[in-house]
Amino acid sequence: MSNVTLKNDTFLKACRREATPHTPVWLMRQAGRYMKEYMKIKEKHSFLKMCRTPELACEVTMQPINAFDLDAAIIFADILLPLKGMGIELEFAKNMGPVISNPVRTNADIDAVKVIDPYEDVPYLLDAIKLTLAELNGKVPLIGFSGAPFTLASYIIEGGGSKNYLHAKGLMYSDPGAWHALMEKITEVVIVYLNAQVASGVQCLQLFDSWAGCLGPDDYKTFALPYTKRVIESVDKSVPFINFSTNTGTYLDLVVEAGGDVVGVDWKLRLDEAWKTIGYDKAIQGNLDPVILFGPVSEIRKRVKEIIDRAEGRSGHIFNLGHGIILGTPVDNVRATVDAVHEFSKG
Amino acid sequence: MSNVTLKNDTFLKACRREATPHTPVWLMRQAGRYMKEYMKIKEKHSFLKMCRTPELACEVTMQPINAFDLDAAIIFADILLPLKGMGIELEFAKNMGPVISNPVRTNADIDAVKVIDPYEDVPYLLDAIKLTLAELNGKVPLIGFSGAPFTLASYIIEGGGSKNYLHAKGLMYSDPGAWHALMEKITEVVIVYLNAQVASGVQCLQLFDSWAGCLGPDDYKTFALPYTKRVIESVDKSVPFINFSTNTGTYLDLVVEAGGDVVGVDWKLRLDEAWKTIGYDKAIQGNLDPVILFGPVSEIRKRVKEIIDRAEGRSGHIFNLGHGIILGTPVDNVRATVDAVHEFSKG
Repeated sequence: MSNVTLKNDTFLKACRREATPHTPVWLMRQAGRYMKEYMKIKEKHSFLKMCRTPELACEVTMQPINAFDLDAAIIFADILLPLKGMGIELEFAKNMGPVISNPVRTNADIDAVKVIDPYEDVPYLLDAIKLTLAELNGKVPLIGFSGAPFTLASYIIEGGGSKNYLHAKGLMYSDPGAWHALMEKITEVVIVYLNAQVASGVQCLQLFDSWAGCLGPDDYKTFALPYTKRVIESVDKSVPFINFSTNTGTYLDLVVEAGGDVVGVDWKLRLDEAWKTIGYDKAIQGNLDPVILFGPVSEIRKRVKEIIDRAEGRSGHIFNLGHGIILGTPVDNVRATVDAVHEFSKG
Repeated sequence: MSNVTLKNDTFLKACRREATPHTPVWLMRQAGRYMKEYMKIKEKHSFLKMCRTPELACEVTMQPINAFDLDAAIIFADILLPLKGMGIELEFAKNMGPVISNPVRTNADIDAVKVIDPYEDVPYLLDAIKLTLAELNGKVPLIGFSGAPFTLASYIIEGGGSKNYLHAKGLMYSDPGAWHALMEKITEVVIVYLNAQVASGVQCLQLFDSWAGCLGPDDYKTFALPYTKRVIESVDKSVPFINFSTNTGTYLDLVVEAGGDVVGVDWKLRLDEAWKTIGYDKAIQGNLDPVILFGPVSEIRKRVKEIIDRAEGRSGHIFNLGHGIILGTPVDNVRATVDAVHEFSKG
């Protein structure tokens, strides 16, 4: 299926910093609750059921592709899907975030964590990828993804969302050996998880380090960076790699050190300044504040143009939000955003 | 009372970048729930009752001063105390954050916002300051404070805490005129509120812009900076001013532009790099991650020493956390932190 010729390869070209007729755009969490087509499926099936049913995951992945002129699809999945195979119980409580009933906090807990076999533990994800590639039929490339080791570790130590990361940082500071032992295992999980997605046909990989930003630069360097770096060095090099994190703008140099063909940035710094820090030998993805999508359209267009202008016509900019689409975002504004990117970036 | 000679003026000297025998230290939210003395009062009185009863506010302000070797006291109060006088109803629901039943969202709401008269609307705060100064009897200086205009505006527009600041940013983007009209009023409130505290005897002022970090640099520059700047330019210049914010490290240059004798920084950037960006013509306050205070003590001491070392013996460093003390922080570790600052910074 990966032999199908891509009709729109602007996204992959931008990942390689090659010239494109327009700036490619996709939006983090582009498949989701802001679309009525999604909510219709969600009425009948739980979130995990949707992830674990290839036909449903494929359908949801395709919804924004059918609705908007996006330049890439991203497989509908969740960064916590590998947890079950690791021996960690995960539930999505109604209207709550993910809840882990057996968080990993002791050395015994860490010893018990298993490295997954993606073909045994997440076969549904790999099937969803194959199904979606067939459905896309070369329309746009498909992105696979994983949580970064730090973000995954924080989740499974905290047992869910967290304000201060007391348990995760507590383990780091009080028993760094235990922290590193856990990160070794998680890093192995992320590598096999991503490689299986590439083997199933995804044409790009993205790592989400959504929580790294709770760390100061030295802690990021010691406790997170080495593992993200190893993931990026170890995965299949046949597809481009996007290294995305949020709230890490004060140590973007360290994020760059972790690697990736593309560095994803949030809206906390200007795209031109971020790219200068990152270096023009890497592509950049970002960086509209997701709240802008609530409108008005005139403001959306102004902000999109500002970001396009800050790319200064340089090849290698992938337009995206600085974080995922927010629940309640008007569908028409998503369309206006995507169309504005194309309009303002066409030579 | 402000004529009492200070027995320990290291904090004020550091604000003015004068040499001190040791690095002065105080901790944001040093009076609070982590202390059993505080919880004992809290059992009998609501949070607002504590703020509005000068004897109780004084007692709570003194608790950490009596327990630890701190170099400054900060009056026990809340950044939302001016709201009632502005015509905004505020409640602290049990085990919840502050809740505002009539958030400010329309032009009519903004028109109805009143500029307070501190002597009419928060006399209890001014009395608490006078009482505390008498109680301190020159032991250490007393800091007064206010929320920064942006943080206050976000609170009263959102009606409480917020994840994405949809209402606040929504107003900014869809009706900037309304936003600026509201900020004009809030700025006036902050100025008279702070000036009344100085007139009542506080020896330093701190502005808390805890939420500014949700903004990108251009939005901070347009929608927040001008008002913080006006506050700092307009208040009584007889006491030093600390300009504190969090998650603004990617545009620290703009925070500096807003002013202040001292710039407070969180733990997201190294103190030496932050100070270099801020400029050595200003003092700096910070910047330990509050989670470090959970221990172990060996780690606390290591981190305190790192920060002291990064100040490079330069005058004008006030040691503090990067944000407030977290609920559950062990009291003995607070003591260990304060003592380590003194130990490692003594010539």
